[in-house]
Amino acid sequence: MDELTSIADMRTWSRERLKAGTRVAFVPTMGALHQGHLSLVEKARTLADEVVVSIYVNPTQFDNPEDLAKYPKTLEADLELCRAAGAAAVWTPDSAEMYPDGYCTFVEVVGPLTDKLCAVARPGHFRGVCTVVTKLLAVVRPDVAVFGQKDLQQALVISRMNGDLNLGTEIVVAPTVRDPDGLAMSSRNKRLTPAMRAKALGLPRGLELARRAYRAGQITSLKLIEIVAEELLVEEGVDMDYCDVVSLKGFAEAEHADDACVLAAAVFVDGVRLIDHVPLAGAAIPVKAD
Amino acid sequence: MDELTSIADMRTWSRERLKAGTRVAFVPTMGALHQGHLSLVEKARTLADEVVVSIYVNPTQFDNPEDLAKYPKTLEADLELCRAAGAAAVWTPDSAEMYPDGYCTFVEVVGPLTDKLCAVARPGHFRGVCTVVTKLLAVVRPDVAVFGQKDLQQALVISRMNGDLNLGTEIVVAPTVRDPDGLAMSSRNKRLTPAMRAKALGLPRGLELARRAYRAGQITSLKLIEIVAEELLVEEGVDMDYCDVVSLKGFAEAEHADDACVLAAAVFVDGVRLIDHVPLAGAAIPVKAD
Repeated sequence: MDELTSIADMRTWSRERLKAGTRVAFVPTMGALHQGHLSLVEKARTLADEVVVSIYVNPTQFDNPEDLAKYPKTLEADLELCRAAGAAAVWTPDSAEMYPDGYCTFVEVVGPLTDKLCAVARPGHFRGVCTVVTKLLAVVRPDVAVFGQKDLQQALVISRMNGDLNLGTEIVVAPTVRDPDGLAMSSRNKRLTPAMRAKALGLPRGLELARRAYRAGQITSLKLIEIVAEELLVEEGVDMDYCDVVSLKGFAEAEHADDACVLAAAVFVDGVRLIDHVPLAGAAIPVKAD
Repeated sequence: MDELTSIADMRTWSRERLKAGTRVAFVPTMGALHQGHLSLVEKARTLADEVVVSIYVNPTQFDNPEDLAKYPKTLEADLELCRAAGAAAVWTPDSAEMYPDGYCTFVEVVGPLTDKLCAVARPGHFRGVCTVVTKLLAVVRPDVAVFGQKDLQQALVISRMNGDLNLGTEIVVAPTVRDPDGLAMSSRNKRLTPAMRAKALGLPRGLELARRAYRAGQITSLKLIEIVAEELLVEEGVDMDYCDVVSLKGFAEAEHADDACVLAAAVFVDGVRLIDHVPLAGAAIPVKAD
């Protein structure tokens, strides 16, 4: 497995593949890799000849400096996981080269995709995501890039941006991977103590109960949101950031839910922010609930 | 010479060159080609094996719908000029494909480069320029792209954006080409009647007189600007859009001029907007002046 740091080395690596006609898939990550990331690498391997994983905690997508400072870093373990997963290269760019002095260019998606949910909760977040993903794709120039459905809004924003800017990469969204207790895998889960984790389970449990209610005929979005809130807000130290029913047709908030809708929620558990969502027409989340 | 319209065809053309190791230079234009553009193609031919010219009047960089509607279009003549100049391909994308329904992604340079001169005079202009150039570069993926110094601020903004976003293209800025009377070549000159043209000559004449004054020891920017204004504003129907002394170090307005400064001006001549500038340490503009 090739370990690359500089932009020039990554570019040379990719250019050689382009010339050789080697199909390249790309999995951009912020490190602290878990089974969710590895499922993206696995998916990527089925889509191309060689897989590049990038590991870069992008400062411009953090609205909260404390969240950035506390973001877990486990580089040696990450490299080992990538090697075991069969990645051909890992790219670990550094911020001095990604955002040199005087850096002043930003990429932004405007409109329905970025006027709600995480966009409101984290001002500037998607601008940072779009900017860094444009940069990463411009250097790696992959045939295909794989993103996790756990961050659904991010995947939709990136997909739109990639198409609008004609970046020429196919964007694939792979399913959320969950722990056996139902919690969506996330690097931030590393910050949860067992007690916090027990409280965090209200999130997948609330979403699953709301999904079941929808399947049983409840289509009033406010009622579905109430079900999530009731599961979550009973615990001390748990705050709801947002909870909304959003239609994937036009990404608009829906007063009445239908099969094109997703129930999306973000919560703080003792200050750690977790997001999750469930497609109302999708499969059950495996949770312990009566 | 290959004539390409769709994004897919342009991408395939470029990908073949990349695989073959053919070095490609790119000259993006808005058509209505003149000797200035052809000098860029000539320069491009010295920098690469094959030259692509794009012809596309990009709607998102026009703040004024009337200016967009009146922008000259001379496609058949343009194609002939490109062929004669030795271009390997001409790409004429169409707006339905460049900006499909729901298009919502924009690229923006913030800071000193875009808080003055044309950025103030034409709100949203550089956002439109950066967005379309990102798209064009993403499709053509040239080794090098050539821009005209006539649009100096645009060339500096694009150069910054290209570096910041790691687009991987070398940006070359080629000198302004002037008619024998001193007027900088511009597609908009086609809209000038002989009487308007006579009035427009106050722009290069004023800039040249100010340059001479600087060389003779006048370093107060306001005085240099006054010299330009005096040449221009004596004529009826001529309005100054802006005139400023800007240092290329940090692109800041300079109270006192030095050799790193450029005198930049934009004027309206009976409603037609023309821009020009002169590096104070640069060569003389060939004008008729006492």
